[in-house]
Amino acid sequence: MSRVFSEQVAACVGQRVRVVGWLQSLRKLGAISFVVVRDATGIVQAVADAASLAALAGAQAESVIAVTGEVRAQPRAPGGVELCDLAIEVIAEASEPPPVLLGKNLANVALPALLDHAVVANRFPQRRAIFRIGAAAMRGFRAALDAERFVEIQSPKLVETATEGGANVFAVDYFGRPAYLAQSPQLYKQIMVGVFERVYEVGPVFRAEPHDTARHINQYTSLDVELGFIADHVDVMAQLTRVLRGMLAEVAATCAAELALLGAQVPELPDTIPHLHFTEALDLLAAPLGESVRGEPDLPPAGERWLGQWARDHRASDWLFVTGYPMRKRPFYTHPDPERPEHSRSFDLLFRGTELVTGGQRLHRHADYAAALAARGLSTAPIAAYLSAFRHGMPPHGGFAIGLERFLMQLLELPNIRLAVLFPRDLTRLSP
Amino acid sequence: MSRVFSEQVAACVGQRVRVVGWLQSLRKLGAISFVVVRDATGIVQAVADAASLAALAGAQAESVIAVTGEVRAQPRAPGGVELCDLAIEVIAEASEPPPVLLGKNLANVALPALLDHAVVANRFPQRRAIFRIGAAAMRGFRAALDAERFVEIQSPKLVETATEGGANVFAVDYFGRPAYLAQSPQLYKQIMVGVFERVYEVGPVFRAEPHDTARHINQYTSLDVELGFIADHVDVMAQLTRVLRGMLAEVAATCAAELALLGAQVPELPDTIPHLHFTEALDLLAAPLGESVRGEPDLPPAGERWLGQWARDHRASDWLFVTGYPMRKRPFYTHPDPERPEHSRSFDLLFRGTELVTGGQRLHRHADYAAALAARGLSTAPIAAYLSAFRHGMPPHGGFAIGLERFLMQLLELPNIRLAVLFPRDLTRLSP
Repeated sequence: MSRVFSEQVAACVGQRVRVVGWLQSLRKLGAISFVVVRDATGIVQAVADAASLAALAGAQAESVIAVTGEVRAQPRAPGGVELCDLAIEVIAEASEPPPVLLGKNLANVALPALLDHAVVANRFPQRRAIFRIGAAAMRGFRAALDAERFVEIQSPKLVETATEGGANVFAVDYFGRPAYLAQSPQLYKQIMVGVFERVYEVGPVFRAEPHDTARHINQYTSLDVELGFIADHVDVMAQLTRVLRGMLAEVAATCAAELALLGAQVPELPDTIPHLHFTEALDLLAAPLGESVRGEPDLPPAGERWLGQWARDHRASDWLFVTGYPMRKRPFYTHPDPERPEHSRSFDLLFRGTELVTGGQRLHRHADYAAALAARGLSTAPIAAYLSAFRHGMPPHGGFAIGLERFLMQLLELPNIRLAVLFPRDLTRLSP
Repeated sequence: MSRVFSEQVAACVGQRVRVVGWLQSLRKLGAISFVVVRDATGIVQAVADAASLAALAGAQAESVIAVTGEVRAQPRAPGGVELCDLAIEVIAEASEPPPVLLGKNLANVALPALLDHAVVANRFPQRRAIFRIGAAAMRGFRAALDAERFVEIQSPKLVETATEGGANVFAVDYFGRPAYLAQSPQLYKQIMVGVFERVYEVGPVFRAEPHDTARHINQYTSLDVELGFIADHVDVMAQLTRVLRGMLAEVAATCAAELALLGAQVPELPDTIPHLHFTEALDLLAAPLGESVRGEPDLPPAGERWLGQWARDHRASDWLFVTGYPMRKRPFYTHPDPERPEHSRSFDLLFRGTELVTGGQRLHRHADYAAALAARGLSTAPIAAYLSAFRHGMPPHGGFAIGLERFLMQLLELPNIRLAVLFPRDLTRLSP
């Protein structure tokens, strides 16, 4: 008999079906026992008598089993149905009790145990829901860009020089030469604007940040976009808004059950996300945070939270663009605002009071790169091969990068970014 | 006036349009000049008189320009149209002549020059065609799997131990501890079968192979698939066939112009790809290659080529599965054939006489892993955290990995795999 997924069982009342999956729990209640089977799509309950249960004698939780039975309505059972009149078969026996019990409340599993035992703990329905939502977000990201002539690229992850500052890079022994893991595909995606005009990349990036916080991980998935022939950063912000709309739409369309399980909702995204210039943001923050905030080159986390609430209260939006960050805190490739050259044509997108995306217009003339690097006391020599692209005709361009795990953390209100990664890498964690 | 892409110009005869892009070439013929503009979609020719050409005075090739003009039919021009009555504007001037001339024949550019100057040379239409076909192949890959309930995952690229042998790994300094770049997501994708049943990953893998050949690169893009609840490797071969069908269909549907430019054709894929057992393959090869081939644990390249021609001649197929490779040459996670335990339930897929994909059924019981590692003189200790998944119920499963660059090389009959990579990494090349 061919297999039926658990999510299909409710449509089979009165029929005999075969379900295969993991023995999530077995609960004996006198003469009968409740067997809960989990498969890729959910769980189904089966009611076993002593005879049919004999096949499970000694079987540990998480054994892989097949349960064949008749489907009957049972309002108290998950999905409103259960299997009875069973034939049970063990496909692959578990040899030990699981390190975390998947029938129990995930909230009772401490984070270190969850991470140490990730090879099994990721089977929790709530864990699976996070990663299914992540996969949907990526589908939506790609679909939005594919529909607008963007070309997907792959850039090297092993590079000769650390392009965005030398501090936070992992060193690699490359056949006896020093190399580094790429912190971002920044210069590559810019160069590729000269080839395809519009590109994106989904891939791992590596940051050797020695911070042990709830928001730091050392490998994450960067959703990178870059596009040419823009007027300024406002075009980039509009592109980002369309991409986010695609990501949220795909999550909403395909992950209703996952969102419900996690108690999360897909936020409204305004047609035009409200925006403030950096100086306007400081004006607003001077009252709640003190006048001294006006001297800051960046928004403090408390300021971002306050602005998030302000956008909620005054613009009815979970989203807020802040533009025009001071040039002195932005990377060398940032394009200045010609009318206020100490400010940049860059932006941060705050989502629920926390920065989610950074982007902006980039410099596109070689001479401007040379000047920007010189002003920062940096040499063009280490990145000369990359910068040469800007000698050979580059249109005005810009882009942004969305951290997939940060997106999931904020969308699902997870307390720790590690919860948005299957097998996180941090200061102390290289395994599993 | 808003922009029109070059591929749309032919539909605008009699109208005035604005094209933006790169000055690919400028050819003076007496009183008139031919200006060729390249954008993301192709090229368009414009006919300039002295007055309109003044705007290009001193402009180097590859400058970014806008050309506004009236479209008229011109059978001898690319696309059958040209622009006349021009207004030309320079958007971003190139400051030097390009290191490779994009209006010339790519075949005259030597490979080292092409790779050294990749930041500009990737603008060649023939170069762009390869990478657009690669992007289409990835779209087809994902779409085929998304349609069959597979979940996309991301696995760590920094690992504590080299799971597939210690020789070919890059060492990383991970906060003072030794780490390695992942050679493949093999064990992670297997573990994730315990979570989602069916998973795939598209991501970079790293091989520190010190070989300087036309077929070796040190970072490539691996299209990894793993699925549970299989009967044996034949189910995996059927899955691979469906995935390849999706990849080829997407390339054929969206890259007709690119294929034509490269003189390539999408091969027929039979409903069922013919297959030979390894021992049958040796029987066939004994005559052309000599009886000594029967002692080989693997197929020599000459044998693969001969079998490729045999499949073409006798099975009318560019594709041939060879199954049942001897266990002694396959990795520790390979599942033996229960009826002939010295042979495996693994396969190679030959495409036009060269191996393109390797896959098979994997071991799924912890005790089998312990025995397989012991038989190879290896310890379970370094990978104990990963192997623990197999103590907690893993269904029979298998999978495969397709190297994207290898796929492109063979599909497009490229003479060197570096030609299938935007910015290749090899023994001597870490830049650009």
